[in-house]
Amino acid sequence: MGPGLLGGSVHLAVRAAGLGCHRVAVGRNPQRLQLALDADAADEVTTDFATALDGADLVVVCTTIGSFPAIFERMAPHLPGGCVVTDVGSTKQVVVGQARRLLGRSTQFVGAHPMAGGEKTGVQYARADLFDRATCIVTPTQSSPRSAVARVEAFWRTLGCRVIRMTPAAHDRAVATVSHLPHAAAACLMRLADRSGHLDLAGAGLLDMTRIASGDPDLWVDIFATNRRSVVASIDRFVRELTALRDAIDGDRRRRVRRLLDEPRQARDAWIDRRYQRDEVEP
Amino acid sequence: MGPGLLGGSVHLAVRAAGLGCHRVAVGRNPQRLQLALDADAADEVTTDFATALDGADLVVVCTTIGSFPAIFERMAPHLPGGCVVTDVGSTKQVVVGQARRLLGRSTQFVGAHPMAGGEKTGVQYARADLFDRATCIVTPTQSSPRSAVARVEAFWRTLGCRVIRMTPAAHDRAVATVSHLPHAAAACLMRLADRSGHLDLAGAGLLDMTRIASGDPDLWVDIFATNRRSVVASIDRFVRELTALRDAIDGDRRRRVRRLLDEPRQARDAWIDRRYQRDEVEP
Repeated sequence: MGPGLLGGSVHLAVRAAGLGCHRVAVGRNPQRLQLALDADAADEVTTDFATALDGADLVVVCTTIGSFPAIFERMAPHLPGGCVVTDVGSTKQVVVGQARRLLGRSTQFVGAHPMAGGEKTGVQYARADLFDRATCIVTPTQSSPRSAVARVEAFWRTLGCRVIRMTPAAHDRAVATVSHLPHAAAACLMRLADRSGHLDLAGAGLLDMTRIASGDPDLWVDIFATNRRSVVASIDRFVRELTALRDAIDGDRRRRVRRLLDEPRQARDAWIDRRYQRDEVEP
Repeated sequence: MGPGLLGGSVHLAVRAAGLGCHRVAVGRNPQRLQLALDADAADEVTTDFATALDGADLVVVCTTIGSFPAIFERMAPHLPGGCVVTDVGSTKQVVVGQARRLLGRSTQFVGAHPMAGGEKTGVQYARADLFDRATCIVTPTQSSPRSAVARVEAFWRTLGCRVIRMTPAAHDRAVATVSHLPHAAAACLMRLADRSGHLDLAGAGLLDMTRIASGDPDLWVDIFATNRRSVVASIDRFVRELTALRDAIDGDRRRRVRRLLDEPRQARDAWIDRRYQRDEVEP
């Protein structure tokens, strides 16, 4: 569902993995569906849910989060028994609740969030290796059938992901800090720098720090709206952190300023080392 | 003065520009001076200021800002008449004041801030092209001799810089927003992400946003300490900006959230276009 960057990459990765699946891309826009065919990111395309779901084993919902309720409603009447449903949405509590409500309790829905993508959107940027070594957080609930969880986790592993299991609530808190807060910070930094009138003095530091601010605003409105509580709590923690540094600078407390800069420097260096070792050791 | 990344790169760029200068590197640490010779980033090295300044035409102070007062004091008795002095310090009001006080009013000091460098420090990372297309802000005052300003601006242009002239105060305000605030934000984001326990879920977004948090903390303690007022004001503006976005998210004001994300996205895209055009058109 949704032949964009992520949906297209799922289909390209499925083919690259040699799973021998018949890949059906479902969308509203015939031109975009044609792009999916042109990119070899679908064996068949359709705008009709009944056609698409006839005989389906696995559905991966890859549209923007805001359209999930409508998609779930239209899918519900046509879902074959035994068909497993997963998704790529960036927030999970709201999505999992919508799936339970709209697809029905008996549906084998297991939420997922493969942490891959980028600022670019559209199937023309889809890549077979987009999920290679990406972390995919799978968020089953107590009512998720074990077999569905196993199939969904195996699916994302086959596409190259490292799978981590979390509750929807724990997922939303974690990504608020490591992904949604950085986006909010990048947007605010970019606004300030632009309004200062001195943007052309900025160098690679600001350029890297604001890269994610180029992301699709509609996508991010949905992400913030469906993870409101955790995002707000993360911004509040960030403001407290900034205020502590600000007060230390203002009071010329050099040792404290140094500590507030040296701790994150060491944490980042250790993080880079772990990433490097992980990528060296694992296949 | 100071055979590190910037001092070494000044010397490599001077040689690459074919200026035919005799390049003397001055430092305290004989091992580092030897590294400068090994990297061909000096024709002569010395720990003695009298030797270094004998017959000098131009001095470029490339040590950390915190050591500027001691350097200026030791330079003062040995500066030949007509010798022009410039620097690479990241803040300018404090530095220009120190130069006037410690080198004497008659000294031909013209402050400069070439916006080049990186997280790495040390002469072993020095590059002849470090200043190529970098912006160099030159900060003369009303008492700066015209001829000295012209020589300093010509010098940085010869090294490949685009030269912009600003007052020391305007410089400090501008870099607080486009350079010092991003550093403070990167450090605070990194601290929060590390303490969340979910750092290993983070992707390229956080990695890019925290790259500058790997910078030398001692350097940054000095930068913040010598640009206290502007840095504090920038953090305060950033907190207001974040709070506006936070309140819009908390109140589910989707149109406002969208605007707060879309404006910086457009500003960044326009900035990238300007950078691209500038680099295409200019040599």
